Amino acid sequence: MTIPMKPIGFVRTDAVQIPRHWTLSQIEGLLVVDKKYLEGLKDIKSGHRIVVIFHFHESPPFTREHLVQESSHRRQKLGVFSICSPIRPNPLGMSVLEVLESSENVIRVKGLDMIDGTPILDIKPLVEDKHSCSNYQENRCTGELFHGMD
Amino acid sequence: MTIPMKPIGFVRTDAVQIPRHWTLSQIEGLLVVDKKYLEGLKDIKSGHRIVVIFHFHESPPFTREHLVQESSHRRQKLGVFSICSPIRPNPLGMSVLEVLESSENVIRVKGLDMIDGTPILDIKPLVEDKHSCSNYQENRCTGELFHGMD
Repeated sequence: MTIPMKPIGFVRTDAVQIPRHWTLSQIEGLLVVDKKYLEGLKDIKSGHRIVVIFHFHESPPFTREHLVQESSHRRQKLGVFSICSPIRPNPLGMSVLEVLESSENVIRVKGLDMIDGTPILDIKPLVEDKHSCSNYQENRCTGELFHGMD
Repeated sequence: MTIPMKPIGFVRTDAVQIPRHWTLSQIEGLLVVDKKYLEGLKDIKSGHRIVVIFHFHESPPFTREHLVQESSHRRQKLGVFSICSPIRPNPLGMSVLEVLESSENVIRVKGLDMIDGTPILDIKPLVEDKHSCSNYQENRCTGELFHGMD
């Protein structure tokens, strides 16, 4: 069973030193989305925080030896599902970025932990809890009934 | 350019009424992970909050008409990248779940917004900000230097 994904766009940044995690990053860059998705970007505004799901496209293939990994900055061996390593069974990354500006099909963001050329698979609104749903920003919490669209 | 993903496991739940979003859910269920990934689960413990990336496997194919969608519970048309609709260019879902128990290859969770049979693509630790990295729980913030593992 294989599930095929296609990039909706790519990360562009001049930065070469990329922090290991978005919580540690002040790096700015661009999310350049395929123009065919332009209308889908219309409600992304400066100041929003967005969730970006992306492909760790430079990761080596995952093997049994990667089930437990020792991080470079911490002397502890942890299961792959408890760390953010780019070497994972499905090489999916997830970052929360701040929108600085959104114009046409290009979103300028801050907090990048992806390298230049990273394929973007999805962009979602950040919804942290039900309070942010009802109070904080209306369009962050809109969602259809999952699997029941009729 | 197609990026192939394979399920690492599947959601199991008896619930038939599934909330539209994890922030609104008290539903319990199981994440049954393929046994070949057992070692990778060893550091997931009761009380942890985990990020689960999954496949909206029952969504219809995405077409241009889905670029802007009106939600069933809100009279507002929004771009697909600003809502959590399951009908997306890449049908990826993301939920934050609470771990009730983790034993062998089965994780009992609370907060489900996926239906029974949903394919799971990845499980990650929840890292909310750099403070949760340094203070809250050590193994939530371990990560390798992205794209620079040498």
